[in-house]
Amino acid sequence: MTSTLGTPVFSDSPARDLVCRGCGTHFPLAAQHACFECFGPLEVGYDAAALASVTREQIERGPKNIWRYAGLLPTGADPASRVTLNPGFTPLVRADALAATVGLRAPLYVKDDSANPTHSFKDRVVSVALTAARALGFERYACASTGNLANSVAAHAARVGAPSVVFIPFDLEQGKVVTTAVYGGDLVAVEGSYDDVNRLCSELTETDEFEKTAFVNVNVRPFYAEGSKTLGFEVAEQLGWRIPAQVVIPMASGELLTKIDKAFTELVETGLVEAPADGWKVFGAQSAGCNPIAVALHGDTDVITPVKPTGIAKSLNIGDPAAGIYALEAVRRTGGWMDYADDDEIRDAIRLLARTTGIFAETAGGVTVAVLQKLVDAGRLDPDAETVVFNTGEGLKTLDAVAEQVGPTYRVRPSLRAVREAGLLD
Amino acid sequence: MTSTLGTPVFSDSPARDLVCRGCGTHFPLAAQHACFECFGPLEVGYDAAALASVTREQIERGPKNIWRYAGLLPTGADPASRVTLNPGFTPLVRADALAATVGLRAPLYVKDDSANPTHSFKDRVVSVALTAARALGFERYACASTGNLANSVAAHAARVGAPSVVFIPFDLEQGKVVTTAVYGGDLVAVEGSYDDVNRLCSELTETDEFEKTAFVNVNVRPFYAEGSKTLGFEVAEQLGWRIPAQVVIPMASGELLTKIDKAFTELVETGLVEAPADGWKVFGAQSAGCNPIAVALHGDTDVITPVKPTGIAKSLNIGDPAAGIYALEAVRRTGGWMDYADDDEIRDAIRLLARTTGIFAETAGGVTVAVLQKLVDAGRLDPDAETVVFNTGEGLKTLDAVAEQVGPTYRVRPSLRAVREAGLLD
Repeated sequence: MTSTLGTPVFSDSPARDLVCRGCGTHFPLAAQHACFECFGPLEVGYDAAALASVTREQIERGPKNIWRYAGLLPTGADPASRVTLNPGFTPLVRADALAATVGLRAPLYVKDDSANPTHSFKDRVVSVALTAARALGFERYACASTGNLANSVAAHAARVGAPSVVFIPFDLEQGKVVTTAVYGGDLVAVEGSYDDVNRLCSELTETDEFEKTAFVNVNVRPFYAEGSKTLGFEVAEQLGWRIPAQVVIPMASGELLTKIDKAFTELVETGLVEAPADGWKVFGAQSAGCNPIAVALHGDTDVITPVKPTGIAKSLNIGDPAAGIYALEAVRRTGGWMDYADDDEIRDAIRLLARTTGIFAETAGGVTVAVLQKLVDAGRLDPDAETVVFNTGEGLKTLDAVAEQVGPTYRVRPSLRAVREAGLLD
Repeated sequence: MTSTLGTPVFSDSPARDLVCRGCGTHFPLAAQHACFECFGPLEVGYDAAALASVTREQIERGPKNIWRYAGLLPTGADPASRVTLNPGFTPLVRADALAATVGLRAPLYVKDDSANPTHSFKDRVVSVALTAARALGFERYACASTGNLANSVAAHAARVGAPSVVFIPFDLEQGKVVTTAVYGGDLVAVEGSYDDVNRLCSELTETDEFEKTAFVNVNVRPFYAEGSKTLGFEVAEQLGWRIPAQVVIPMASGELLTKIDKAFTELVETGLVEAPADGWKVFGAQSAGCNPIAVALHGDTDVITPVKPTGIAKSLNIGDPAAGIYALEAVRRTGGWMDYADDDEIRDAIRLLARTTGIFAETAGGVTVAVLQKLVDAGRLDPDAETVVFNTGEGLKTLDAVAEQVGPTYRVRPSLRAVREAGLLD
């Protein structure tokens, strides 16, 4: 449904309307996420001239966070309007040792989004979603989540003193419950699966009592999704206003992949970045326990068959990926590929990334690095082309994934003699 | 002992020598941490003219991390010389809701060092220590630690491809073991207390086999300690080149407090910041389970009686604080005060900070916020003077501290009716 709230003020924004990704119908900017004509998902459309007026100099004068790109986002141009922890401009880490290990000869970089305030890329999308939500008149912030999103929404609400209500499956690990509950908002444990939680949240958006509640990934989803573009903008700027030849991106709904590709396209269209002569190739990474998009690509079909997710990469476990079809399109159009990794490969890749770069990733980062290796081995990635892989979260959030694999390499009594006998002085 | 390695290259550094904090004897820049005359701790001395040549413009042109202050540090002027994850320039968060809750009328800020790469302020000191260590010819990086320091040293070594060997007590929580072990360096579990671990490391620095091993908090400690100054530099710069009237700082060894005070002093001496008319006041925070410095202050004595630490604020649990005497001096000289908080107060303060700012702190941050409240209540802090509190670490690292205190506020079946019956729609 469209919000019945007053006309939003998007007057200082390049956003023009909402456009159906299915049938192309246009709608005014509002809290609407599905097309009234075909039920397709909506995406923010922009005024091309407004986007093209943004200059590198304007961006470079901006803050070292996502808001330096406010001129390319639907909301947040006025700093006072932002509901935000000021995420973004996370490190782009040159990873020579990792490149050598996986067999890449050209430079490899890790875009490390564990450096965001609540340590995942979700801070980007939540900041844009909640800033739009406030502009649209919403007064309470909500989401359905199994972890990173819950953490980010609760923290954002606490920062601005707004009420929040976060819905989670009742059987979440205690650690994930604590990182959200500590912020003091309402936290609702739902006796069901994540799919049940999601469905309940969709129903709640239709109730009078939740009329002024923005569910970041439901009724303000088009704005939410735009936040992911900042990952693409940052990579290009950090490379000196260049688009890398190859990017490897983890996929849950598939939306992150499509938005990074959209960011690159916008950078070229606006003239902020010169179009690379050979374009860029987008690669997608899933886990073996939840691989419906990659399986569709491998089967050369557009039909994405939903799965019941399993495996340790829980932050990627969306069995019926809403943007999967658009991720397939981006990968096919750019000449990329997709693959998936099993739990053992994910664990090994977390350790490989840590010991070669000093970055400790959550399981989603392990998925991406494991798939990087597979794509090199299969000849899908060009070892002589510059590559960027995206780590979207923090290893501290999924410690259990590697807890059984790593530990002390020596155990000694506290004496020099014991140290010598243990072979430490050899 | 002084390293027998070749003459270090500190030619592009303002550092002049090492100075005994006890008797004032000068020593050349080297891997030496105790005075040959009086066994007092050594501190880096600077060439005043070199420091005074640094300008705000130079700093502001630098990277958004600690190395923008390289001209005020003993090492790291050449980017290629750095052993670093590029920590620093962490957020200074305006905390109006927290100020109102604790009873401050003037602006209150939280300097949030959980935003560093391994999510504690230790990345600052490790970056400076290991950069000095490499300049001094050391080839392996080490420390004695119970958590944050271990994590940072192992990650730094992994980033630059150097070997590391980290010593920990054998009974550390598995979570803290994992966050260090994942980087693939040597991790030595010592069957003893942290004090035993520390003593063993001191002995190891004297062995031939560890001649080329830098223990960041032992044989290169004077350089290590200088890294903490960057917290003071950043706060002043982030306030618009101003020193706040009051700062509240957690104390373990007491060194962090003395170095933030030293940073303010250097900023005034170099002319980078105008001396505040009323100076600044430094306040120290400990836990009730490890409060030897605060107890000495309260007892109006210079005698710091070592304690056997207890309580949940483990990262502050140094029972025999090496810099305690200097912390006392700084607090007395500036007209500040110290206090301590018990475990329940620490837990409450973690939650208070989270729900008023969106910052989830480890127990050390809880200590600082709890003591902030006590200092206001006791009239020690001026409610009308600008105040900065320091959060030195990340709540994800000490989840257990609040795990029993927070949780879901509702539990429902996945239906609108259940939500209504639970009172969520009231």
